[in-house]
Amino acid sequence: MGSNHARRIGAIQEPICVAMMGTIMLVVTLNMVRVDRRRREPLQLQLYGQVRRAIISGELASGARLPSARDLVEQLGLSRNTIVYAFERLVAEGYLQSRIGSGMFVAHLPALERPRTGSGSNANVASSDRVHIARRVAPLTEVSVNPEYPTLKVRPFRPCQPAVAEFPLRSWNRARSYALRLQAKELMCEGDVAGLPRLRAALATYLRDARGVKCGAEQIVITAGAQEALSLISASLVETGDAVWMEDPGYLGARASFLRAGAKLTPVSVDAEGLTVPRLRQTPRLIYVTPSRQFPLGTTMSLPRRLALLEFARTNGVWLVEDDYDSEFRYVGRPVPSLQGLDEGGRVIYVGSFSKVLFGSLRLGYVVAPPSLVGAIRKVKEVEYGTSPGIEQATAALFIEEGYFAAHVRRMRKLYRERRDSFLQAAQKYLSGLLTFPPIDAGMDALGWLARDADDAELSRRLAEAGIDVPPLSAYSLKPCPPGLLFGFTAFTPGQIRSALQAISDFVQ
Amino acid sequence: MGSNHARRIGAIQEPICVAMMGTIMLVVTLNMVRVDRRRREPLQLQLYGQVRRAIISGELASGARLPSARDLVEQLGLSRNTIVYAFERLVAEGYLQSRIGSGMFVAHLPALERPRTGSGSNANVASSDRVHIARRVAPLTEVSVNPEYPTLKVRPFRPCQPAVAEFPLRSWNRARSYALRLQAKELMCEGDVAGLPRLRAALATYLRDARGVKCGAEQIVITAGAQEALSLISASLVETGDAVWMEDPGYLGARASFLRAGAKLTPVSVDAEGLTVPRLRQTPRLIYVTPSRQFPLGTTMSLPRRLALLEFARTNGVWLVEDDYDSEFRYVGRPVPSLQGLDEGGRVIYVGSFSKVLFGSLRLGYVVAPPSLVGAIRKVKEVEYGTSPGIEQATAALFIEEGYFAAHVRRMRKLYRERRDSFLQAAQKYLSGLLTFPPIDAGMDALGWLARDADDAELSRRLAEAGIDVPPLSAYSLKPCPPGLLFGFTAFTPGQIRSALQAISDFVQ
Repeated sequence: MGSNHARRIGAIQEPICVAMMGTIMLVVTLNMVRVDRRRREPLQLQLYGQVRRAIISGELASGARLPSARDLVEQLGLSRNTIVYAFERLVAEGYLQSRIGSGMFVAHLPALERPRTGSGSNANVASSDRVHIARRVAPLTEVSVNPEYPTLKVRPFRPCQPAVAEFPLRSWNRARSYALRLQAKELMCEGDVAGLPRLRAALATYLRDARGVKCGAEQIVITAGAQEALSLISASLVETGDAVWMEDPGYLGARASFLRAGAKLTPVSVDAEGLTVPRLRQTPRLIYVTPSRQFPLGTTMSLPRRLALLEFARTNGVWLVEDDYDSEFRYVGRPVPSLQGLDEGGRVIYVGSFSKVLFGSLRLGYVVAPPSLVGAIRKVKEVEYGTSPGIEQATAALFIEEGYFAAHVRRMRKLYRERRDSFLQAAQKYLSGLLTFPPIDAGMDALGWLARDADDAELSRRLAEAGIDVPPLSAYSLKPCPPGLLFGFTAFTPGQIRSALQAISDFVQ
Repeated sequence: MGSNHARRIGAIQEPICVAMMGTIMLVVTLNMVRVDRRRREPLQLQLYGQVRRAIISGELASGARLPSARDLVEQLGLSRNTIVYAFERLVAEGYLQSRIGSGMFVAHLPALERPRTGSGSNANVASSDRVHIARRVAPLTEVSVNPEYPTLKVRPFRPCQPAVAEFPLRSWNRARSYALRLQAKELMCEGDVAGLPRLRAALATYLRDARGVKCGAEQIVITAGAQEALSLISASLVETGDAVWMEDPGYLGARASFLRAGAKLTPVSVDAEGLTVPRLRQTPRLIYVTPSRQFPLGTTMSLPRRLALLEFARTNGVWLVEDDYDSEFRYVGRPVPSLQGLDEGGRVIYVGSFSKVLFGSLRLGYVVAPPSLVGAIRKVKEVEYGTSPGIEQATAALFIEEGYFAAHVRRMRKLYRERRDSFLQAAQKYLSGLLTFPPIDAGMDALGWLARDADDAELSRRLAEAGIDVPPLSAYSLKPCPPGLLFGFTAFTPGQIRSALQAISDFVQ
C-alpha cells in the first residue's frame, strides 16, 4: 500500500501542499493535460477525457484539490467556458466533488485505491485460467456449420449457392416499397414472434401447393434462416444426453445444432433409397432427414422407406426433422412431395429456408411444427431469438403473393438445368479420369466420386489453395466413407464452370 | 387385422375380380375420383392427388390392379395425356408399379397395411402424453420477454417504443440503395458470422466516441437484436444451475434468457445509486446491469458503485453484462459513459441494440465482448443463430458513416424531450392525485409511483381493457416492490399523450 501510494504521488507533477482545515492538502497542477487544437474533438471533451483518465489511472489521487478555474485558464490556455463545461461533467459523473467555498476535489473512490494484482492493465485482462466458458460450448470448437473455406468470397464450386446475380432485385425492391407504402409504421414495430401473419399465410398456401405440406399458417414459425430453425427445434426437444440420429454423411449445420443442445449423435447410413431405418435397441429422441434430396449424396428417399420411417416414428414417439432445403430444383419429373404430407401421426417437423430460393443473406427460414409442438417452439423463439425482421417478412409475403416467387423458381430451375448440363459436359471433358459423377436429377450440387484410395480432404485442401472450393465428402461424415468432392454448380456461369474444371484438371496432372 | 382388411376392401367401389396367373386379382374402377373442371388446379394434378390419397388412406388396397388407360379415358372422361401424366408421377413416386404386359398396380407398401392405433388421423396426432418437450422449456411458460399486452398494436403508453413515424425512412432507403449499388452480389451472399466488417468498424467508432466503450471492431458480434445478444451471452457462459444476479426490478428479456440457459436467478436490489453489490457468500457467474439508466426504475449507477462493481467482478472472476439499451436519450447533461469504458479487468460484456435508436423490427443489435470471450461467442453465434441479414447490415453501416445516425439521434433527443415535457405537464394535470412521477432526465419512459396499498397489476389489467398499455412494476420484479406503472412517452404525440392521460383519469374516477 505504502509504495503504491508513493508511486501515485510521484506521478502528480509539481504538487503544492497547502494547509487547510488543519490537514495537508495536495493541490495538483494538471500538467499532464495536453489539449490539441488541431484535433476534431472539442477542447472541452479533450480536457474532460484526460482528467477522467488521470483519475481512473490514479495519476490524480483522491482528495487532491484542483487549481481554481481562474488559475487553470492561465495554466492551460483554455477559455473559462471550456473548463467549466469539462469540470461540470466530471462532477456530474462523480469523478470530482465541488465543496462550496473550498473548490474542486478529486472524489474519494475506494475501489480505485486498492492495489491491483498484476503490474499493468494488460495483465488484468482476464487471463485464460479465469475465463470460464459454458461446458456446452467446448465441443463446438470441433464442429462447423460449413466446411472451412479459406475466404468468404463465393468461388467455384462452393455448394448450395444460388445465382444471386440472376436474382430479380428490382422486383424484390418494388415489393419492399409497396409493403412500406401499405403499412410502414406497423412494419417498423416489433411484430408477432412467430412471424408476420401475412407471410405465414402465403407460405402455408405455397407449401401445400408445391410441397404437399399439410399445414395451417398457425403451425408456421418464421426464423432467421434454417440454422435458427434447427436450433429452435433442438432447444425445444433435445435434452442433454438425448440420442439423435442423423443421416451420415449429413448436413453440418444440423449436426452443430444438435451437439450444442447436448445430443448424442448416432450416424445412420444412407443407401440408394435414403436413410436406412436401423434396428437399434435404443430409440432416439429425434431423427434428422433430408428426404427430398439427401444432403450431400443427392438420393431421394423412396416411398416404402418414407412410410417405414413414419411408422417407426409414430410407434416409438420419435420426432422427425425433415429439412427440405432445395426441393424446388428438380430437373427430371416433378418435385417429390414432402415427407410431412404423408405423416398421419403428427411426428414430422418441417424445416425450410429462403436462402437457396432467394438469397443467402436474407436470413429468413421457417419451421412447420405439428400442432402439439407449436406452443413450445414459439416460446423458445420468443425467449432465445426474438422476432424476425418486419420489412423483409412483408416483402417476402408480397413476393410470394404476387407470383414473383414462383416465376423466379421456374427461371432458376431452367437456368440451373442448363448449368448442370454445362457442368457435366465440362466434367466429362476435363475430369473423366479423376472423378465420377452420377446423373444429377435435382438440387444445386453434384457429388463427384474419387478413386477408392484417394484422400478427399487433402485434395480439397490443395484445391482451395489453388482458388477452388470443393469440400470433401469426409467433412460431412461421422463414419468413414468413400472419398468424394462436392461441387455446387448453380452460382457459376458456363464459362466459369469450364475454366475452373480445366484448372482442376491442370492442377491434378 | 381381419376386420381392418375387410373395411379396406369394402371401401373399394365395385371391385371386379379377374383371374390372372392363378391368383385372384382386384381390378378397381377409381370411382372415388371426382375431378372438377372449374377448379384452378390442373386436371392431371387433381387425378394424381386423389389417387395418391386413396392409396395412403387404404381405399385402394396394395396389389390392386388399375383399369387400362383406355378404360380410364372412357370412365373418367379425361384425356389420355392427363391420365398418363398423373400415373407416371405416381409410378415415379412409388405409389404405383407398372408391370410390362400386365398393367398398373397399387404398390405394396407394408407400413400402410399395419393396423393403426386410434380410429382416425386426428387421434394419431400425437396426444399430449406423447409430447416430450425439453425440460429446459417448461419454466419458460412462466416467463415472458415483454409484459402481456392484449394487442401487438403500439398503444399509449407502451414502453421502449421509438417514434417510428419520425424515422427518416427515405434516408434509410437511400443508404440501402447505395449499399446495393456498391456491392449487391456480395451483400446477397452469407457473410461473416460475426457481422459485416464495415458495420462493426462504424459501430466501434461510434461506441468509442459516444459511449466511451473501449473496443476494436474485432470484439463486436452483430446479432438479431438485444434478445439474441443476451441469449448468445447466456449460452456461452451460463451452465445449468449457475447463479446469475439480476437487478430487481429488471428487464424481462434478460431474465427469460438466463432462465432458458438454466441459471438460478438472484434478485439484487436497486437503490438511488443503481444496483447494490450484495455481500453474499456465493459468487455468481454473471451479473446483469443497466448502469446508464436502470430498467425500469430509471436511476443511473453512480461512479463509486460502478467502480465497486468492477472491482467485485475482477476479484471474483464474475462476468458483468452491461445492457446499454437507451443511453442515447439523455435530456439533462451529457450521456454518462459506459461501465465498459471503466473496466480494466476485461470482465464487462457490453450489449446494445438498434431497436430503440432506429426501429424495433430492424432486428440488429450487438455484443462487445472482452477479447478472451470473442471466440466462444462467435462460435455459439455460428452454430445457434447463423449470420445476420447482409443488406440491412450494410445499410446500417452507411447510415452511421454518412452521419444520418447521429443526426437522427439528435433529432429524436429533442423530440423526446418535448414529449417528456408534454407528458409531465399532462400527468400533473390529470393524474396528480393518483401517480407520482420523479423527474425524467433520460430515457424513453417514465415510472409513476402509486399509493403504497395500490394493486398495480390489477390497475394495469383494467387499463389495458380500456385501451391503455401501462405495464405494472410488479411484472418486472422478482421480490415484492412498491406499486407503480411504466409509461413510455416517446412514440406518442402530445395530443395522444394528453387524451390517453385524460382517459386514465376518467377511468379511475
